[in-house]
Amino acid sequence: MAHIAVVAGDGIGPEVVAQARKVLDAVVPGIEATEYDLGAARYHRTGEVLPGSVLDELAGHDAILLGAVGDPTVPPGVLERGLLLKLRFAFDQYVNLRPSRLWPGVAGPLAAVKPGEVDLVVVREGTEGLYAGAGGALHRDTPAEVATEESLNTRHGVERVIRDAFARAGRRERRKVTLVHKTNVLTHAGSLWARAFAAVAAEHPDVTTEYQHIDAAAMFLVTNPSRYDVVVTDNLFGDILTDIAAAVTGGIGLAASGCINPEGRYPSMFEPVHGSAPDIAGQGVADPVAAVLSAALLLDQLGHADAAARVTAAVGTELAGRTPGTPLRTEEVGDRLAAYAVA
Amino acid sequence: MAHIAVVAGDGIGPEVVAQARKVLDAVVPGIEATEYDLGAARYHRTGEVLPGSVLDELAGHDAILLGAVGDPTVPPGVLERGLLLKLRFAFDQYVNLRPSRLWPGVAGPLAAVKPGEVDLVVVREGTEGLYAGAGGALHRDTPAEVATEESLNTRHGVERVIRDAFARAGRRERRKVTLVHKTNVLTHAGSLWARAFAAVAAEHPDVTTEYQHIDAAAMFLVTNPSRYDVVVTDNLFGDILTDIAAAVTGGIGLAASGCINPEGRYPSMFEPVHGSAPDIAGQGVADPVAAVLSAALLLDQLGHADAAARVTAAVGTELAGRTPGTPLRTEEVGDRLAAYAVA
Ligand SMILES: CC(C)[C@H](C(=O)O)[C@@H](O)C(=O)O
Ligand SMILES: CC(C)[C@H](C(=O)O)[C@@H](O)C(=O)O
Repeated sequence: MAHIAVVAGDGIGPEVVAQARKVLDAVVPGIEATEYDLGAARYHRTGEVLPGSVLDELAGHDAILLGAVGDPTVPPGVLERGLLLKLRFAFDQYVNLRPSRLWPGVAGPLAAVKPGEVDLVVVREGTEGLYAGAGGALHRDTPAEVATEESLNTRHGVERVIRDAFARAGRRERRKVTLVHKTNVLTHAGSLWARAFAAVAAEHPDVTTEYQHIDAAAMFLVTNPSRYDVVVTDNLFGDILTDIAAAVTGGIGLAASGCINPEGRYPSMFEPVHGSAPDIAGQGVADPVAAVLSAALLLDQLGHADAAARVTAAVGTELAGRTPGTPLRTEEVGDRLAAYAVA
Repeated sequence: MAHIAVVAGDGIGPEVVAQARKVLDAVVPGIEATEYDLGAARYHRTGEVLPGSVLDELAGHDAILLGAVGDPTVPPGVLERGLLLKLRFAFDQYVNLRPSRLWPGVAGPLAAVKPGEVDLVVVREGTEGLYAGAGGALHRDTPAEVATEESLNTRHGVERVIRDAFARAGRRERRKVTLVHKTNVLTHAGSLWARAFAAVAAEHPDVTTEYQHIDAAAMFLVTNPSRYDVVVTDNLFGDILTDIAAAVTGGIGLAASGCINPEGRYPSMFEPVHGSAPDIAGQGVADPVAAVLSAALLLDQLGHADAAARVTAAVGTELAGRTPGTPLRTEEVGDRLAAYAVA
């Protein structure tokens, strides 16, 4: 039986993760879970972000379920670089998978887009680009200061994530992949992405392809999100596009993500896109849907495709049944989702 | 009297620029204009993008009015790096100014946002960041290829554009500046931007400030664009945010921009955000509003604030009078705008 690591984290993290685990237990009884105390709370208490021994222990699990980490008093970058990105890089999670659907029952912000009309997935590169941590500063705190950030892109890293995107597109109905980059300005990295994309596309004559600059794609996600099926892009562009995609499909409160090492050499990590939301933490009012959808991605990755589909369908039932304006209770939503998923 | 250079460019460029000039002539008679033939057409004909002699001549003008350059057959980067970015860098146009308004009469895509509720301006840095052209590739076209793009940020470059943003905010009603960056991942450049922002903010106690990560800002532009007044950000983030802002306010067909050298040591350049739109070129149906609004920014920069305000008001009259679905004729729109502006 699978053995997962659970990092509930800070703020609403523990509340939503509890519901995700409830649903997991309901659909696939017997998954073992070990909890790890990481995040802002531990950092404040001990100064530790991710001790090496914990990283080693996490490596021994089949997957990681993460709630949310952070609070406004932790300096920027500490938990991001020290925990989240550290895990993505250490576990070679090169596919950062972010599906977006406009669910029936959810009022999106776009007047012309109806529920069911948006169903896309962004395959964001997760181990390279501007997230590599290459950069520095000279003459800091003087008028002569210069600060750099370097985007590193390898054929190895670019091609493998593009392959993953085409494989996913091949399993979907529309079979379309959009490459998003900024080839007209970032000519070196853009050229590498474009050539790798063309090479992989040539092996998939059944998949339709298109290319868009990041600025155009950001715009089209607002004016015509239905046009997208699978979008593949680099780490930073993916960060931005997935938040826009979440916004047009009802907000990050519903958005799930998986940081995936497709070969399974290292554990993949699944987490809601939302943060720890300290303003509503502890009140039992956080929406656990994004965490539960992340658990569905986890099930899929562990080979439980049927169970994953049941959880996703349960979310559909839950959202279709909501009355706009009615306050929700985290636990009740979890109970309903677990019940729908096994019904 | 001012002397401007006009680069009408390709596709719909000449059509919309003709209307912008018509309006300019109406409100400030006697502005001299010299046309320069640059863009895809010249490139195809002669292989030239921006001869040094032309650059020198352009430098002698008070401002540049540009229509649109490019067509799908020019390789990516040639006109962007060789012409548009070349001018921005050569003329030290460090303020890339992009206002966005949801005009009465324009149906934006957001169900909850009413005309008049969005009135923001993005002050995008124009001479640094990932646009610096620093980068390269090794082992090109082999499995070992690595490609880099480097973001270069100086205290000099960052502080001056932030100063411009605060100065603009001080002249606006809401007096608010939002800094957008990604300080939690791009820690070196992010820290420089954040420290420069804090230093300039301290000199402007009358201006409200906030900070957002680029992914959050992209999202809030969709869910709550009314919250923004002045947004200051780096070159690439500004490229993306301004297209989103254009999308939520009715599309790039209405979006104007100025690439400004505030000190006037070099000419500033004004251009619609839209491209050359080869699909509708030559039919007389392109909307000249973005070009005319760009001309208004040009007038403002040349010290004709009153005339600029009249042109902007004329656009308001034009847009409020449009019946959705009625086809427009480029020349007729230009005629009306000129008439409204002098009425
Ligand atoms: C918290 C941050 C490091 C992270 C990112 O930029 O990837 C977040 O925005 C996300 O999208 O998962
Ligand atoms: C054409 C391109 C170089 C340019 C940019 O990226 O700045 C355009 O997208 C813009 O926003 O003016």
